[in-house]
Amino acid sequence: MPSQSRRAHVLPPSDNRKMSTDLGEFDLIARYFTRPAARAVLGVGDDCALLDVPQGQQLAVSTDMLVEGRHFIPGANPKDLGHKALAVNLSDLAAMGAEPLAFTLALALPKAEAAWLEAFSAGLLALADAHGIELVGGDTTKGPLNLCITVMGLAPPRCALRRDAAREGDSVWVSGTPGDARLVLGGIRGEWRLAADDLDVLRERLDRPLPRVALGLALRGVARAAIDISDGLLGDLAHVLHASRVGASIAVDDVPASAVMRTQPVERRRICQLAGGDDYELLFTAPAERHEAVLAAANAAHTPVARIGQITAAPGLVLRDAQGQAVAAHYAAFDHFRTP
Amino acid sequence: MPSQSRRAHVLPPSDNRKMSTDLGEFDLIARYFTRPAARAVLGVGDDCALLDVPQGQQLAVSTDMLVEGRHFIPGANPKDLGHKALAVNLSDLAAMGAEPLAFTLALALPKAEAAWLEAFSAGLLALADAHGIELVGGDTTKGPLNLCITVMGLAPPRCALRRDAAREGDSVWVSGTPGDARLVLGGIRGEWRLAADDLDVLRERLDRPLPRVALGLALRGVARAAIDISDGLLGDLAHVLHASRVGASIAVDDVPASAVMRTQPVERRRICQLAGGDDYELLFTAPAERHEAVLAAANAAHTPVARIGQITAAPGLVLRDAQGQAVAAHYAAFDHFRTP
Repeated sequence: MPSQSRRAHVLPPSDNRKMSTDLGEFDLIARYFTRPAARAVLGVGDDCALLDVPQGQQLAVSTDMLVEGRHFIPGANPKDLGHKALAVNLSDLAAMGAEPLAFTLALALPKAEAAWLEAFSAGLLALADAHGIELVGGDTTKGPLNLCITVMGLAPPRCALRRDAAREGDSVWVSGTPGDARLVLGGIRGEWRLAADDLDVLRERLDRPLPRVALGLALRGVARAAIDISDGLLGDLAHVLHASRVGASIAVDDVPASAVMRTQPVERRRICQLAGGDDYELLFTAPAERHEAVLAAANAAHTPVARIGQITAAPGLVLRDAQGQAVAAHYAAFDHFRTP
Repeated sequence: MPSQSRRAHVLPPSDNRKMSTDLGEFDLIARYFTRPAARAVLGVGDDCALLDVPQGQQLAVSTDMLVEGRHFIPGANPKDLGHKALAVNLSDLAAMGAEPLAFTLALALPKAEAAWLEAFSAGLLALADAHGIELVGGDTTKGPLNLCITVMGLAPPRCALRRDAAREGDSVWVSGTPGDARLVLGGIRGEWRLAADDLDVLRERLDRPLPRVALGLALRGVARAAIDISDGLLGDLAHVLHASRVGASIAVDDVPASAVMRTQPVERRRICQLAGGDDYELLFTAPAERHEAVLAAANAAHTPVARIGQITAAPGLVLRDAQGQAVAAHYAAFDHFRTP
């Protein structure tokens, strides 16, 4: 891949055991990650990849790093992992209303195992193909398992869905049924018990999230601000409010709930739906008069959306339940260096 | 930074100790990595950064991942580390003849320490400013120390210095004095003894390599193929030969040597200069009749270069010393999964 370099290592390695396979770095790149360039001028195999950016388009760029034991369970299914590593990045393009173009992958691996790499690459490239995004380069190295993907997408100027674009009176919308990833995570962690069938149903939401790329594209020119819910609905809404210098009033019981979520105690539902991360749904705002246009965009993207509140001129966040009672806004976002 | 997301973690963390400072993830991004966007349309702080790519330019992209204990010593000077993490990526742009534009940084850290972050950011951003490249986004997470940078640069179509462009009869050139990084590394590791003064002089070459960006730009339209020497001169030359389907004849004693290198035994000098990685010099080919143009480009870029051989139609690599004697080509490149 581009920049197959930086191989010099500065330490006598602590792990001198033989690799479990005969795969070298260049072999594994060639075998699992190299395909002929499709849209790219030059793909995997040089110091850099080369891409054409069509005239009248801006480049949208985002990077996410996934660490074993932090973002996924040691021993996680490599095919799911390949899917999820790209999905969380595609979700950032979706939240910007950008069309997927190309991505790079940097991979630190304790060892080069053919079976793991084959499954990882299959999950990764299947999702890439589904979204027409091309792997154009990257890096592989030995080290604690770490996946870093940088995605690039295209958006016409002044069309991107920025965090700072919410305005007073905008409706606040959300896609899908937020909270499911957190609900299943609590079941896995033993925070609460879920029926085995429910776990199976929801597990997919945690392991193989579907980035809302089609919705993001359909919302161009319709929505104002957008963000993906990776840190929790309220935490990510707070980023929009802060960037746009506005407040919001949210009807918490209008947040759509999955069938399993609707059977949960109300406090657990609140924790999952308001503070639970890892959902990769879109939260966005649109002028109230664009209500029908939002529904048409969602319909075109085959993605359910719901109106859950509105933007206020006064800063701060007001939460109310279905009875109009105030709900305390103590559902904080996840912070890697503050949350243990 | 863009994509400050993916915070949900799936495991009860094994390290429940308090962070040694009060710095949260969003604080540290704001404090150490956020500056007003200069060339970018939108910089740090949204789901994606937005960049304008000027008409008539292609985008060059490369990613490198640096792992503690593999690419740098645990406890390495964070300012040097910030410099080096970006330098090795800039070197990939240099080897492509691309002009630096923007980069993203993904950072896994065991803990958020203000002093470390301040020094790291100072080293990183000083080199960024020196090359007019802008930090536009990234990700921070808790985890084993890992630095992943993706650089983006610009090159006019058909102007990039590709690995597959070497032709029979081309001269083979190299910049600087390859092997110094490997020589000092051997001194640090105790493979051989170096005088303290020599160690100090050479240490800079390992810790703060200078990417040959100006040379790469000056060689546009002059050189044919180029690559940066990160895996060792012969290993990286082999990539060029393979991609271009040609061979080469190299006069090993014509590889320029630093003053310290010239005092070393011949076998050590060969190991360092032919197989030593981490130098980030450029190896390139140019038509023999462009000899003066190459020297003029090097002069304009204030970068010493030397002719060390030529490209042959017959595949394979022939090494000869100053006496015309064959030298065995057993100086292999570094491979992360084959080299222990």
